[in-house]
Amino acid sequence: MTPINIQQKFTKFSKNWHPHQIAIVDDMQVILAKLKGEFVWHSHEHEDELFQVVKGTLYMQFRDKTEIVKAGELIVVPKGVEHNPCTKDDEEVHVLLFEKLSTAHTGNVKHEKTQTHYPKI
Amino acid sequence: MTPINIQQKFTKFSKNWHPHQIAIVDDMQVILAKLKGEFVWHSHEHEDELFQVVKGTLYMQFRDKTEIVKAGELIVVPKGVEHNPCTKDDEEVHVLLFEKLSTAHTGNVKHEKTQTHYPKI
Repeated sequence: MTPINIQQKFTKFSKNWHPHQIAIVDDMQVILAKLKGEFVWHSHEHEDELFQVVKGTLYMQFRDKTEIVKAGELIVVPKGVEHNPCTKDDEEVHVLLFEKLSTAHTGNVKHEKTQTHYPKI
Repeated sequence: MTPINIQQKFTKFSKNWHPHQIAIVDDMQVILAKLKGEFVWHSHEHEDELFQVVKGTLYMQFRDKTEIVKAGELIVVPKGVEHNPCTKDDEEVHVLLFEKLSTAHTGNVKHEKTQTHYPKI
């Protein structure tokens, strides 16, 4: 029940594509991540996933289109939908995610970028 | 799967203490509200509730203390904990909430401020 400062939490880690957990709400978690470049095509069979962009511009690639999500915007990726977040021009994009605690980082895919543990900060 | 601009959504309603739904993530919803003055003491027996402050300063009163939550900060009110959000100096505070679809506006309390329907915007 202590206020959590989002900007301050972003100073606590630097690696790209490494989610860090800042809060839990029932069976969901709030995580922060710094994205740069391209991630991995994947989907989450059973979980929706919300991306709120805090800094920069996120290019959320779907198989049939790319949605541009700017700072102050959010997008919900429905369960089962293949997606691949990426950023352009070497920009580091800061995002806050809401998702089930059970959500696997790269869903059904195993990749060198896959993280299985999200440190609490 | 369309990006949602949070500021733009806030222009779509004006009444204080009237939550509006902007997204659903699994069995949880993202709602926006404009708060001014004092709300109502209540708790949610079965649901946690996340408040992210987008504009202004929220004073989250608990029975034993008040937490000050500024723009760019968030606070999670655990299930069962009595709380009463308020603002000071007639400030209108904008918040984004993340909570179960089942969460009742004023929990176990009925009050003239209680809303039972959150319009989708």
